[in-house]
Amino acid sequence: MQIAYLLYDRFTALDITGPHDVLNSLPVTESVFVAERSGPVRNESDTLSLVADASLTEVPSPDVLVIPGGFGTRALLEHEPLLDWIRSVHEGTRYTTSVCTGSLLLAAAGLLDGAPATTHWLARDLLGELGAKPVPGRVVEHGKILTAAGVSSGIDMALRLIQIEFGDEAAQAVQLGIEYDPEPPVDAGSPEKAPQPIVELVTATYRAQDSGTQSDA
Amino acid sequence: MQIAYLLYDRFTALDITGPHDVLNSLPVTESVFVAERSGPVRNESDTLSLVADASLTEVPSPDVLVIPGGFGTRALLEHEPLLDWIRSVHEGTRYTTSVCTGSLLLAAAGLLDGAPATTHWLARDLLGELGAKPVPGRVVEHGKILTAAGVSSGIDMALRLIQIEFGDEAAQAVQLGIEYDPEPPVDAGSPEKAPQPIVELVTATYRAQDSGTQSDA
Repeated sequence: MQIAYLLYDRFTALDITGPHDVLNSLPVTESVFVAERSGPVRNESDTLSLVADASLTEVPSPDVLVIPGGFGTRALLEHEPLLDWIRSVHEGTRYTTSVCTGSLLLAAAGLLDGAPATTHWLARDLLGELGAKPVPGRVVEHGKILTAAGVSSGIDMALRLIQIEFGDEAAQAVQLGIEYDPEPPVDAGSPEKAPQPIVELVTATYRAQDSGTQSDA
Repeated sequence: MQIAYLLYDRFTALDITGPHDVLNSLPVTESVFVAERSGPVRNESDTLSLVADASLTEVPSPDVLVIPGGFGTRALLEHEPLLDWIRSVHEGTRYTTSVCTGSLLLAAAGLLDGAPATTHWLARDLLGELGAKPVPGRVVEHGKILTAAGVSSGIDMALRLIQIEFGDEAAQAVQLGIEYDPEPPVDAGSPEKAPQPIVELVTATYRAQDSGTQSDA
């Protein structure tokens, strides 16, 4: 089972390494990090590079596609070479998945028209503008498309994929292997749980970081 | 506040990108990925490369050190150039931290003699053999040293560091930003919670992957 992890300028690292370290725990998977051009790809805060070991043309038919989010998605919403590849690959996948604002690219490619999907809570409106039906939920399943909410939710999405494809015991084994028994020291992981001033602070901070590239700002 | 993220051959990606994406959410931090030599560093399953942007000598005095785990730790337990750097850097840090088997390197450097610490649940015995006092806990604090349990626990460790240093509201804002509201589809994230056959399966799998380099196998 070949799994393609898409990279692009200004992606979010945890969005893609979370699912990778979950899915890669299974001995039956083959991982390939892919971008328009092979080589180092810089993350959204310009603090790290992950290497794309292959270019898009070298990975025409993965079984699973994982698209991370990141501030870089906004610059790609009309970038046909990438959207064409996503559309083409999707025809043959067993699962097409996204984390965070990665679902904006699925929507821009026309794969989520009218379909229930999720994204980072701050991008829900934009996801709707792109034709999807934003719904609550940390992992939203629509046929073979799995979309996950913000950043860390890719871990849950990948575990759910394993559960669907390989069963509960496989998911349990992977969860135990990565010791995924969360104990956050505070409880503000969603806009519904966080105090309102914190929601406003994070909203303002993200809007500022995203300025110039976000069409719904 | 400069944060050094250590890379070495056969590290675990989520161990280091988890803390990075948490700590890097704060505008007051500067991130640097560091390894003995700068350039791409391959992870433990040979499926991805993260780039070290600096060599050890270029990062003599970070404020925070984050050491990830990975099967590669075992080959470094007597590697003095790295252990010397860890000891030297630790003298000036505000926090010295590890995720998963990264604590084996702290112990090998002599920084955990008799100190309470944690690691991946499968490496607890080895951590004790190296002089530390393995204790239960997802994040264990001992003065300025924070050790975290397996792989995904680095997210909780980094949030705890933010809570200690910057307060509850900063931790809440970061948690909301990465939408860390975990919903694993199964409940087997620790050896205490997982069914016994799953614990045995994961133990056997990890021992096999680690063969040839693990001294307690």
